[in-house]
Amino acid sequence: MNPIKIGVAGLGRLGLIHADNIHHMKHVELTAVSNLDEQVNKEVQEKYSIPYAYTSYEAMIQNNELDAVCIVTPSGFHTEHIQKALDHGLHVFCEKPIGLDSDEIKAVMKKIEDSDRVFHLGFMRRYDEDYVYAKEMIDRGQIGDISIIRSYGIDPISGLGSFVDFAKKSPSGGIYLDMSVHDIDVIRWFTEAEVKKVWATGNNKAAPELNALNEVEIGTATLQLNNDVTAFLVAGRTASHGYHVETEVIGTKGMIRIAATPDKNKVTVFNEHGTVRPTSQNFPERFREAYINEMKEFVHCIRYERQPSVTALDGLRGTEVAAACQQSFEKDELLELSY
Amino acid sequence: MNPIKIGVAGLGRLGLIHADNIHHMKHVELTAVSNLDEQVNKEVQEKYSIPYAYTSYEAMIQNNELDAVCIVTPSGFHTEHIQKALDHGLHVFCEKPIGLDSDEIKAVMKKIEDSDRVFHLGFMRRYDEDYVYAKEMIDRGQIGDISIIRSYGIDPISGLGSFVDFAKKSPSGGIYLDMSVHDIDVIRWFTEAEVKKVWATGNNKAAPELNALNEVEIGTATLQLNNDVTAFLVAGRTASHGYHVETEVIGTKGMIRIAATPDKNKVTVFNEHGTVRPTSQNFPERFREAYINEMKEFVHCIRYERQPSVTALDGLRGTEVAAACQQSFEKDELLELSY
Amino acid sequence: MNPIKIGVAGLGRLGLIHADNIHHMKHVELTAVSNLDEQVNKEVQEKYSIPYAYTSYEAMIQNNELDAVCIVTPSGFHTEHIQKALDHGLHVFCEKPIGLDSDEIKAVMKKIEDSDRVFHLGFMRRYDEDYVYAKEMIDRGQIGDISIIRSYGIDPISGLGSFVDFAKKSPSGGIYLDMSVHDIDVIRWFTEAEVKKVWATGNNKAAPELNALNEVEIGTATLQLNNDVTAFLVAGRTASHGYHVETEVIGTKGMIRIAATPDKNKVTVFNEHGTVRPTSQNFPERFREAYINEMKEFVHCIRYERQPSVTALDGLRGTEVAAACQQSFEKDELLELSY
Amino acid sequence: MNPIKIGVAGLGRLGLIHADNIHHMKHVELTAVSNLDEQVNKEVQEKYSIPYAYTSYEAMIQNNELDAVCIVTPSGFHTEHIQKALDHGLHVFCEKPIGLDSDEIKAVMKKIEDSDRVFHLGFMRRYDEDYVYAKEMIDRGQIGDISIIRSYGIDPISGLGSFVDFAKKSPSGGIYLDMSVHDIDVIRWFTEAEVKKVWATGNNKAAPELNALNEVEIGTATLQLNNDVTAFLVAGRTASHGYHVETEVIGTKGMIRIAATPDKNKVTVFNEHGTVRPTSQNFPERFREAYINEMKEFVHCIRYERQPSVTALDGLRGTEVAAACQQSFEKDELLELSY
Repeated sequence: MNPIKIGVAGLGRLGLIHADNIHHMKHVELTAVSNLDEQVNKEVQEKYSIPYAYTSYEAMIQNNELDAVCIVTPSGFHTEHIQKALDHGLHVFCEKPIGLDSDEIKAVMKKIEDSDRVFHLGFMRRYDEDYVYAKEMIDRGQIGDISIIRSYGIDPISGLGSFVDFAKKSPSGGIYLDMSVHDIDVIRWFTEAEVKKVWATGNNKAAPELNALNEVEIGTATLQLNNDVTAFLVAGRTASHGYHVETEVIGTKGMIRIAATPDKNKVTVFNEHGTVRPTSQNFPERFREAYINEMKEFVHCIRYERQPSVTALDGLRGTEVAAACQQSFEKDELLELSY
Repeated sequence: MNPIKIGVAGLGRLGLIHADNIHHMKHVELTAVSNLDEQVNKEVQEKYSIPYAYTSYEAMIQNNELDAVCIVTPSGFHTEHIQKALDHGLHVFCEKPIGLDSDEIKAVMKKIEDSDRVFHLGFMRRYDEDYVYAKEMIDRGQIGDISIIRSYGIDPISGLGSFVDFAKKSPSGGIYLDMSVHDIDVIRWFTEAEVKKVWATGNNKAAPELNALNEVEIGTATLQLNNDVTAFLVAGRTASHGYHVETEVIGTKGMIRIAATPDKNKVTVFNEHGTVRPTSQNFPERFREAYINEMKEFVHCIRYERQPSVTALDGLRGTEVAAACQQSFEKDELLELSY
Repeated sequence: MNPIKIGVAGLGRLGLIHADNIHHMKHVELTAVSNLDEQVNKEVQEKYSIPYAYTSYEAMIQNNELDAVCIVTPSGFHTEHIQKALDHGLHVFCEKPIGLDSDEIKAVMKKIEDSDRVFHLGFMRRYDEDYVYAKEMIDRGQIGDISIIRSYGIDPISGLGSFVDFAKKSPSGGIYLDMSVHDIDVIRWFTEAEVKKVWATGNNKAAPELNALNEVEIGTATLQLNNDVTAFLVAGRTASHGYHVETEVIGTKGMIRIAATPDKNKVTVFNEHGTVRPTSQNFPERFREAYINEMKEFVHCIRYERQPSVTALDGLRGTEVAAACQQSFEKDELLELSY
Repeated sequence: MNPIKIGVAGLGRLGLIHADNIHHMKHVELTAVSNLDEQVNKEVQEKYSIPYAYTSYEAMIQNNELDAVCIVTPSGFHTEHIQKALDHGLHVFCEKPIGLDSDEIKAVMKKIEDSDRVFHLGFMRRYDEDYVYAKEMIDRGQIGDISIIRSYGIDPISGLGSFVDFAKKSPSGGIYLDMSVHDIDVIRWFTEAEVKKVWATGNNKAAPELNALNEVEIGTATLQLNNDVTAFLVAGRTASHGYHVETEVIGTKGMIRIAATPDKNKVTVFNEHGTVRPTSQNFPERFREAYINEMKEFVHCIRYERQPSVTALDGLRGTEVAAACQQSFEKDELLELSY
């Protein structure tokens, strides 16, 4: 079986995770990396015995050995990088968000539709076994019709410093586009409906240093969908207990919670603090398997010439809703979306 | 020690609970009841050996033996009944809500302020040991400044039939006034701040029969407070798993959840359904001790000539915010409150 | 309704709890206390406005106003004090264990059987709502036939100092008689069977100072019952997380756990330690309601002239099995019981 | 990198799992299988494109392409198959137990020690991340010295039928050797001590059909170790709720529980049964990752020429203790072990 040869663009925290996962897959080769920092490139190249390393994305995608590219560059480059990869006939895995600007996204969506290449967007929660289990319960009607969804994505305080450094360099797009986009995607995936109104709030009580960066430490958004579902989101950057991703679905016949407590593992400790469940500390830990599963699905799609169930439209909608949340927060008013 | 003599007005479900609690208190006498249904009166009178029973509230409060009255009549009568009791020099315990109309409430508040009688409003969650424990943690600063509160009050589907019967006879005031008023009080109690904006949504997916009654089966409200706290409420009438009252407080230094699962007791069952925690089935079960505690506090206030910490103003604000939620839901828009 | 007048003998930790519970009961009077320490007597007498206080048990029971006595004296005096109370025609509530010596217990059982007075033994777990709920499930056959029971009673390390002080003054009878006797009673109550073999082990790793007192810090006992149930007990004195009382019942059709985690309340805290459930800290906290319930039942038995379901025989068997555990531990061998 | 070529012997339930895991490993080839049933061989060979398939173990190990063998044959053949593989210079992964007879095990241990080949015994719990996390806490002293361990391995009732079929064909060695051997290994691994006394009990209440097979449906064993640790084991075959593997460690400074409830995933469901956590249904589900991890470690040991931390002596001790439990149960007496 010929190996599928993949290049990873961007060796930040998540780029390194994808590189590692690709390296460990059978019948797959981590053939190239592109990244600005030559020192990092060198270390990664040696660690995984990678044939090629580039300091420019454009240089990498001209490597004719490549079958596919995994784009983990800053969000602002996504649409451009997708387009260039498709132009070179490469299959594309792109981290979320698909882009920051809806017109640019629409343009690249046209490219994607016209292409026969695989396009896979990195909404990894769709490949997390807990989310999949819940989705299957919902689809079987086990909780009836959905009335309410609540979804939290709260980063640990331990990561605040590096976020501040990151946000100083390039805008995150705001907390809704940076973080809630996963929750928005889950809501659309679970309900198969679209958001029509949003009201968002937020503050910087725990991290006043974010004021200067035009960022918020914790934000909420209440979303009303076109099928009469209400959703409530919390996104944050300062959880003292770890990485808290939790989703609740209230249906007419029952309720489901996914990760009601952000357990690290199956261990319970009884000590002077009480009965303690250790907590998941970050996204690489919480979604380790989901990142592997989505990459396997990407490779399967390439090998068996099909498309993943998550689409570029899902990416566009995620960005549009997140942008509406950001706008609602900034204007402090209820916003209606039109697509 | 002379017993404190109390009359209970209204022998519905909650009236019977208060009657039973008063009956069992030491140095307290359940001296009278008033209630429209003579048959019920007779049964209750016999059960507790109650000296007097009346079919009219006005008749009861003229009984000079009484020290105090416990008002559990329909909400629309509360302000009138409070006023009359105070006019007769009686101490007053009144079930929530203090009233349905803010002008009427303001008028009776004046009466209460001018009186030296004890006035106690039945926000029993303030006397629930779990809520008290959380409040104390908050006041000690253990979770820092509050950013977000989430509070659910969802009645079991098993009670839907009797609610429909009840709502056919007299308007409940809507789900926010009927149910969320407890959550609104908790939010004000925990934050010591006032609600300034609300957006409410709701639907009748699980109980379309409520459409005809102008009621909703499940409602949400997002509240913004004047100290930058955002609160999210869910009120419902169709939980398949029991009586679900849950409150979460997200602070800058930690989070608290009260009754994250609505456990009936400390028992866990492992059977063909999985690992099962039996659930609390209704408010008398969940708040049994809280109802006793609040009545003890009422009696202490009478005996030691002081006022409870919960005030008529708390009642007014609860009604005002709940009414704003109802209005927001009906108009489908974001509302700003002015007091 | 004439009040039932009760005298409390012994004002240690548990004596004070019983006194307080009796004081708060309606139609019941805390008429007398007896206790060696005059200073304590004075304080308690004032606090509860108690008519009589004695420094001798024998003096108290001659008070003809008394209907009943609540014996909370050191275990070694129980049989003697029961006998004397019955001789004075008093109803008797006696704390566990009924006695330390089986011949003495058998003698007093004869007295109890020949008397028409109420005799109530303080196995309060039989009046704890969680244990009652489990017992009812078992009796309804919901978990089938019982195969295995596991029951833990572990005191918090915070109480070790006072235990050492106590044990220096008078022998506790060993950890099995002092603590496991509750678990043994639960096992007999749940299974309605008798223990036939025991093997007990223990050590003082966490509290070597107990070696000098001939006590153990943590002990286990494996019991085989005459209906093929195996039970495993843990008793301890050094839990770092609080007061841990937990019971598990494995049946042919399901399993039940009572207090799988020793939760203090319904609050969950998320902080730098992880997801934390605060823990119950001591027996007065964990069994507060059970102590009230058992005293109510004692009073009901007196008033309605019946006997409680827990019997003196239950007390005898509890002591016999606990003594066998102690002996097995000391001899380091498997012991067979004969009754 | 040259692939490591492995042959799998025995294609029962667990053999198929190991085959699948080996197939998916990078730089590893599933080169051969041996199994009595030709039809199964054919299906597996096709599914994974396996070069060779044999109906005889002896034939397979003569294939000179092989580097290693994974033995998942019936327990009675393990020692013989290990020996033959070593004689052919193959690295050996062998499922637990290492053997049924301690003399045979000792003989093969000599072979293993004299060989430079990797020998890896399939105690997969040592490669489960929850058990590893607990072991690391213990080794860091976070719960002090161990006093008590409790460990359960209970198979689901859904698997009883296939166990009965299996046990009719070849003796399982009894429930302690078949199931508790994992718990015994965990106890030895956690405590680094040896068992000196055992007392075992059991019954067939839930599955009387096992009487005819000389098997028990549920068994317990109490073990005393040479460092004053007491362990309590439960092994069963009829859990109505799924596959229940749980381990508790009580130390002088704290307690740990691994899988206190046998959660299938992170989902909680609220429905008419209460608050429900779905349960793990079988060992392939519960230990999926552990089986992969141990095989990775086996391959690493081969590639980097080292031995795994779990040794043949661990296998011998596991079998000896399990056999002592079985003997104690059969004789109904406390047994002392000598090694």
